[in-house]
Amino acid sequence: MIDPSQLPFLSHEGRYETSLRTTGRLLSLRQRHSLNQSDYSYLLRQTAEWHSAFLQDVYLGALVNLASDEQLEKYEGLSRDMRIVGCYAQTELAHGSNVRGILTTATYLPEEDSFDLHTPSIEATKWWVGALGKSATHAIVFARLLVPSEGDLGMHAFMVPLRCPRTHQPLPGITVGDIGPKFGFAGVDNGFLRLNHVRVPRTELLSRFGSVLPGGKYQKPPHSKLGYAGMTSTRVNLAVRSGGQLAQAATIAIRYSIIRRQGGAGPDGREHQILNYTIQQHRLFTQLANAYALHFSGTYLTELMESYRKGVVSNAVDLDLLTELHIVSSGLKSTCSTIAAEGMEDCRKCCGGHGYSQFSGLPDMFASFVHICTAEGDNYVLTQQTTRFLLKCLSQVREGVFRSASPFTKYLSKSQAEVEAERCPVQRPEDFLSYKIQLAAFEHRASRAILTVAERLEAAVGRGLDADAAWNSVLVEVYRASFAHCLLLILSTFSQVVERNRTIPSIHVVLKRLCDLFALSQMEKDLSDLLEDGYLNRRQVGFLRDQARQLLTELRPDAVGLVDAWHFSDTVLNSAIGRRDGNVYETLFNWAQREPLNRSDVPQGVKDYLLPVISGDLSKL
Amino acid sequence: MIDPSQLPFLSHEGRYETSLRTTGRLLSLRQRHSLNQSDYSYLLRQTAEWHSAFLQDVYLGALVNLASDEQLEKYEGLSRDMRIVGCYAQTELAHGSNVRGILTTATYLPEEDSFDLHTPSIEATKWWVGALGKSATHAIVFARLLVPSEGDLGMHAFMVPLRCPRTHQPLPGITVGDIGPKFGFAGVDNGFLRLNHVRVPRTELLSRFGSVLPGGKYQKPPHSKLGYAGMTSTRVNLAVRSGGQLAQAATIAIRYSIIRRQGGAGPDGREHQILNYTIQQHRLFTQLANAYALHFSGTYLTELMESYRKGVVSNAVDLDLLTELHIVSSGLKSTCSTIAAEGMEDCRKCCGGHGYSQFSGLPDMFASFVHICTAEGDNYVLTQQTTRFLLKCLSQVREGVFRSASPFTKYLSKSQAEVEAERCPVQRPEDFLSYKIQLAAFEHRASRAILTVAERLEAAVGRGLDADAAWNSVLVEVYRASFAHCLLLILSTFSQVVERNRTIPSIHVVLKRLCDLFALSQMEKDLSDLLEDGYLNRRQVGFLRDQARQLLTELRPDAVGLVDAWHFSDTVLNSAIGRRDGNVYETLFNWAQREPLNRSDVPQGVKDYLLPVISGDLSKL
Repeated sequence: MIDPSQLPFLSHEGRYETSLRTTGRLLSLRQRHSLNQSDYSYLLRQTAEWHSAFLQDVYLGALVNLASDEQLEKYEGLSRDMRIVGCYAQTELAHGSNVRGILTTATYLPEEDSFDLHTPSIEATKWWVGALGKSATHAIVFARLLVPSEGDLGMHAFMVPLRCPRTHQPLPGITVGDIGPKFGFAGVDNGFLRLNHVRVPRTELLSRFGSVLPGGKYQKPPHSKLGYAGMTSTRVNLAVRSGGQLAQAATIAIRYSIIRRQGGAGPDGREHQILNYTIQQHRLFTQLANAYALHFSGTYLTELMESYRKGVVSNAVDLDLLTELHIVSSGLKSTCSTIAAEGMEDCRKCCGGHGYSQFSGLPDMFASFVHICTAEGDNYVLTQQTTRFLLKCLSQVREGVFRSASPFTKYLSKSQAEVEAERCPVQRPEDFLSYKIQLAAFEHRASRAILTVAERLEAAVGRGLDADAAWNSVLVEVYRASFAHCLLLILSTFSQVVERNRTIPSIHVVLKRLCDLFALSQMEKDLSDLLEDGYLNRRQVGFLRDQARQLLTELRPDAVGLVDAWHFSDTVLNSAIGRRDGNVYETLFNWAQREPLNRSDVPQGVKDYLLPVISGDLSKL
Repeated sequence: MIDPSQLPFLSHEGRYETSLRTTGRLLSLRQRHSLNQSDYSYLLRQTAEWHSAFLQDVYLGALVNLASDEQLEKYEGLSRDMRIVGCYAQTELAHGSNVRGILTTATYLPEEDSFDLHTPSIEATKWWVGALGKSATHAIVFARLLVPSEGDLGMHAFMVPLRCPRTHQPLPGITVGDIGPKFGFAGVDNGFLRLNHVRVPRTELLSRFGSVLPGGKYQKPPHSKLGYAGMTSTRVNLAVRSGGQLAQAATIAIRYSIIRRQGGAGPDGREHQILNYTIQQHRLFTQLANAYALHFSGTYLTELMESYRKGVVSNAVDLDLLTELHIVSSGLKSTCSTIAAEGMEDCRKCCGGHGYSQFSGLPDMFASFVHICTAEGDNYVLTQQTTRFLLKCLSQVREGVFRSASPFTKYLSKSQAEVEAERCPVQRPEDFLSYKIQLAAFEHRASRAILTVAERLEAAVGRGLDADAAWNSVLVEVYRASFAHCLLLILSTFSQVVERNRTIPSIHVVLKRLCDLFALSQMEKDLSDLLEDGYLNRRQVGFLRDQARQLLTELRPDAVGLVDAWHFSDTVLNSAIGRRDGNVYETLFNWAQREPLNRSDVPQGVKDYLLPVISGDLSKL
């Protein structure tokens, strides 16, 4: 594979080229060793960067959800081999998550039996689309479907060829390019696209869920929500990635904290390993526990997606499952990526100055990951989906018609009075190690949060606000309710995994501690949610803190083992300070020697602009 | 000036060259217009990047604090003109904040009446030093002073020439270079330095606070803490910068939130400006208030530093003032940069996808700023300084000898019983708008936090831990106590400024709202600190939230005016989405056209690595 330690020196152009090289190598390895999909997916993750082959997988997820069987026949195989390089062209310069607001049009022309795809304004330019800038041969373009006799039929997806299959030059009517450098993600050619009355045949409307017949009759999708399945698939992908990325950051930070020594003299006469400071443990072990927690909820979400996909493939779509998937993936995408991004940045800061060097691997890892918080549905906007659903459940409870489809919404069936009366029964610090007590606290928090939304919403309507304005007035609480619900879901799946490992005591005891720390650190972080209505009392808060600190001490001996268990290779981590062999300082020194500025003792810029200053001759500057 | 919109396309090498060009231009402008120090300082901030002239100012701050009058005579003028380019070489590869642990040695050689400066190991390599990589002609090197008859005299500072004044080539015994790319700060040549028995004359020990006489007799500094004044000056600088940087990010995000529209139809039939969503207001106005708050505490800190410097210059050092400055600058550097870094990143996220583009100006602004959280004393480590001091005050209170030097420590004179008995007297939402009530709540929080440290420390000692281990066991609480103390200080200075503006009602009313929002949002953020011991009750929390939301509505009409008031030029912000003229989308589109990848429709990398994949020929990859 390509030596990733050169990446920090490369520009966007160089990083993009490297990503293409990596992609070519991955495909060639797949072919040579006839890898199956699961092995290939594993291989895709064995690199230090987000590359084109990964993006192709995102596009394929959308294609599978949107295309009809005939269309899949035509496109899927070529796409899997990257003979077709695809992209998912939804976002526009002036429109993101609000897909109903997109401006690109696809007008059906009966006389030509084709669609005219058009970008009516600069604001309608497709923007941010991964792999569109320089790579893609085709785009799945989202546009408003306009059919003469039927009017505006809303957003639909079209397969649009972008570049000549032979020369790779943009086709007539297509203006396309790269949108320039980003925070991270330097290896990806996010692009823009303008369509000037581009024609595609009628059959290129991706029509698993709605199509136009010759002459212009529109055939409705079986369910209006089905068109959103592509976006759901992407969100699942992003939520699932969160745990793995946080795990990488935690691995680097924990390994480095063993090597780094500072302050006072430890038992061996040398300065203390910084991992022995409680504040460092408090910060890093919390992220270790978060990473494991997100990993297991990611597994849960993947299984849910698989069940749904099996239905789609056999043309037996489970709409309840799609709704659940939509709600859970929206909420978890937001919650998991928020926890992971904050956690990664704290892991970086835990490495002090060296965490700020690109050689630590952490800045680029964070900067490339954090786009997930605002992409594919902003993390704040998205939570409205989850909370609206929870409110609907709540009103079903009140009407006595609540039927819980998901095991995680059972708590909604409690009445307000029941929730009000709940109190945490903890009597001693170690009581906090009971799942029952932890889950009860998380449920209480989630109940209160959604009840608060309902209450404030009613009050706002009572003050005379219309529905939109009332909803707007409670958005802060809407976010909190979704977050609390998702935390409950994450803790539930985590504790189930721990229990499944009860038969292997050595694993069980460590996983249990991690799960406990996840539960207690999340409670400590947002303690006011449990204090405000008296669910916890002051004495219990003291116990909670004591027990949380106690867990740090108990986890200390296993900390390195727990990160080594993830088995990230040095290539994937691409970190001078997170290496398996611990040779931190020499590696930092050696890598620095390769900085291009060091090729000369006196670079041209110094000669041109600094030496005149030093010699006191400012006249030429 | 140089067009800053090209910066996102440049590598570290290119950014460094631009920073040198900028520096040359700034100096030339100073000379041409005979600018005084204050005008020049203002000019230094009128650029989009951290440049060499700014770093020179940091070095000069240290020089003034460390050098004797004779040494200043020799170096100050040349340094102000950048005929000497200096740097502050303290940090080593294996040592950061713990200056007592540094390994570089300076051995006095009586026979040569000079010092032998030496880097004994790879770990002792000076690292991270700004302007050292390729620019500096001289370094202030921190090393352990070894004098034959007197032993190891601890850390001292030495002026060491690094490069030939004519050729700029490194001098004999000097190995120096750039440490490579970082998260941000691309225009700065952070460097490394190894000294191989380099000799400097005895008179090059910077000797305002201690010197060696010919033959080797050591002359003690008047006070052991004085040597740290250089570091204090840097911390003041960083704390002060925090407010301005957050203000820039808030300016971009608030301006963009007026232009960006999304979701539903507003009163004008177009989609809503996103600034009209309460969640966006909640996030952005909080940062607006934080930026103003940090600005005013920065002014306070600057004035404190000025008073101290006046004393130093007139050789009448005020040790009480130095102690206060040390404590306040340590605490505020940590608190202000933490608030600013978190706030800047949230401002970036508030801009959704476009905040992720380098063209927004936000990623580089955040990435360049955030080094402050871990540099010059890590933000967690530093808080130990503040909290140790507060504990000392507390024990003086208990011994009945407390004499408050600072107006912000008066609250420490309350007894534990008094603090326990305190309750928030709020009866209606608007009661939360009283300074008295706000300050009382902040004081209560700070009191409780420091009492908790003391309590837990005693308990740990009681369990048999030694002093170090007991201290280690309470580090989480130590951080919280320093943070709470600094918030009180920030609110106090903010409210004083607001009151000074009472005579100008139009300004007073808006500043008061900002100050209120700062107070209430900080309370809401860490609500558990006021709930845990029953200081606030549930009804009051409801009032707090209502009042905090009410302030958002009241601030909305002034939001744009409040950011325009800072008067950042488009050059300084360097943001396609934060422009004064609001022409967001066209600018993004135009800037993207200049991306180097767009020079060709089919870049070489695509030809070499992607076209073989598309044509199905993987054999060569």
